[in-house]
Amino acid sequence: MDSEFKNFDDIRKAVARLPSPDSAAPSVARGRDATLTKPTGSLGRLESVVFHLAGWQRRAIPKLDAIHILIFAANHGVTAQGVSAFPAEVTTQMVANFRRGGAAINQLARLHDAALTIIPLELERPTADFTSAPAMSEAECLAAINAGAGAVPESCDLLLLGEMGIGNTTVAAALTASLLGGNAKDWVGPGTGVGGAALANKIRVVEQGLRLHGDSARDPLEALRRLGGRELAAMFGALLEARRRSVPVLLDGFVVGAAGAVLASLNATGLDHCLAGHVSAEPGHRRLLEALGQSPLLDLGMRLGEASGAATALGVLRAAVACHAGMATFAEAGVSDRDQGR
Amino acid sequence: MDSEFKNFDDIRKAVARLPSPDSAAPSVARGRDATLTKPTGSLGRLESVVFHLAGWQRRAIPKLDAIHILIFAANHGVTAQGVSAFPAEVTTQMVANFRRGGAAINQLARLHDAALTIIPLELERPTADFTSAPAMSEAECLAAINAGAGAVPESCDLLLLGEMGIGNTTVAAALTASLLGGNAKDWVGPGTGVGGAALANKIRVVEQGLRLHGDSARDPLEALRRLGGRELAAMFGALLEARRRSVPVLLDGFVVGAAGAVLASLNATGLDHCLAGHVSAEPGHRRLLEALGQSPLLDLGMRLGEASGAATALGVLRAAVACHAGMATFAEAGVSDRDQGR
Repeated sequence: MDSEFKNFDDIRKAVARLPSPDSAAPSVARGRDATLTKPTGSLGRLESVVFHLAGWQRRAIPKLDAIHILIFAANHGVTAQGVSAFPAEVTTQMVANFRRGGAAINQLARLHDAALTIIPLELERPTADFTSAPAMSEAECLAAINAGAGAVPESCDLLLLGEMGIGNTTVAAALTASLLGGNAKDWVGPGTGVGGAALANKIRVVEQGLRLHGDSARDPLEALRRLGGRELAAMFGALLEARRRSVPVLLDGFVVGAAGAVLASLNATGLDHCLAGHVSAEPGHRRLLEALGQSPLLDLGMRLGEASGAATALGVLRAAVACHAGMATFAEAGVSDRDQGR
Repeated sequence: MDSEFKNFDDIRKAVARLPSPDSAAPSVARGRDATLTKPTGSLGRLESVVFHLAGWQRRAIPKLDAIHILIFAANHGVTAQGVSAFPAEVTTQMVANFRRGGAAINQLARLHDAALTIIPLELERPTADFTSAPAMSEAECLAAINAGAGAVPESCDLLLLGEMGIGNTTVAAALTASLLGGNAKDWVGPGTGVGGAALANKIRVVEQGLRLHGDSARDPLEALRRLGGRELAAMFGALLEARRRSVPVLLDGFVVGAAGAVLASLNATGLDHCLAGHVSAEPGHRRLLEALGQSPLLDLGMRLGEASGAATALGVLRAAVACHAGMATFAEAGVSDRDQGR
């Protein structure tokens, strides 16, 4: 990263001057696409994905040689309110599982030859319960943002962000409600699988957090500090750092999207370097993607987190780049195109 | 294949006694899935895809080692009616392009390590124009069906079917309208890119075919013979042969779906071994999948044919199988599951 953020004002300055994508590379890519042996437009989103990658990679023929997946893990004081179907110690247990290669994301990273880095964030020190206090101090929030920004690899064709943190769909619901408006029940869903009275309790917990922090959380960074968590702050930092370096990002589910909403709330173009890998089964995610103007590549009812939806969408990106880079042109193949044929 | 079909009655007999999937293998797969380190159901369709493959492969842990893609190519007399934006010679030119490795499907087959076989069906002998005569004689239709059935490889974990044939979205629209009802305009779309007056002409051509063959095409095999084409007949044959051998099939777009509709019209369970790889941009395809009770894995606005949508969906199948086969169980990983944790 360029340098550590010392305070929230440093971040506001960085967010105010974000780079735009290259315009030449996508234009060359569009020109090449029109000569490939297929009707123009017939590969649908595979084509627009290529133009997106070309713009942010600043390469006419984009590459997916160096794909990096970062998984941030953290614990949440709000789990004391009984918002999850799983106990909080599962966060630490799953970090060990990631390291031993036993989780879904390990299989998907291997399938797509992507580098996987697990970044636990002070698991033994959960954030404060946001129903009674701000989740983090400014120093704690900054440390997590800097950890995320610092984790973005030096050389990277595509970045995937994921998370693990028991209780974090509650945190994401509170944060998105605060940033984007609406009621708690618009954003709260079953997460890992709560329903009935437990779901009603989860909604009540989010309402309580919004009541306590409402006005103080008007500023997006304050909302992140008061209602967020370390993994969300870290993903915000990684999203910002990727943008500053013009690295395209493939977004995962609801919790990653909530971190993205912080950046989008600070700068309306803040997520222009991102593609939405999928829309998850968590109902708030669809609403969130609509608010962010992002159209998901996949809709497979996944709701696991840990970048699993984004990693599944890697298949679409690899298909897109393989076709663009490898196909013959009409001239090379001696195939009549529609203009010649009429 | 078991033996060549001598006449349509042979086919009717085969279609009347189709095998069911194994019930034990999916049950074992469901049992294993429930022990993997994730909330049950959290991989969404990745889970149901595994159970589908387990049932038809008759293996508790399905494999995708031998994936075969068959592309059938044919020419259509109805192109004389000006229904395509591309000239009919493009079919032959694209077959050459497939053989040199320059088409989209070549890149996608390579990406997924799938074997690709191109099967041109008498390209120099287009079917008759269905607006004035049956497209094929029974002998011609049977030859194409047998060519398709005979092309299914001996050992195969998953079969993908695709096609190339200038004019064949017109043929598919006529066939689906005949099999499933509705008006020509419900099933006719832009195909490779016709619009305006050319689209109105395409609708008129399909209406003319339906008027000419209407009552005679009540029988699905007669509809295939009168309104279909060689590549559609071959794909019908391959779908039937795959089913007889319990090989799962990943369907591509509208034209493949129209071939599938013949089998589904003969036997309501005829496509139970199939997954829909994607829904294409051709409007009739969404309607067709709904009629067939198939839910597509991808919706990316693709409309190229040549199995490109199905091959893109291979990424989802590979992700599903990788997770199921490779993930650790709660017990192996020492992770608390929700029952232990409560």
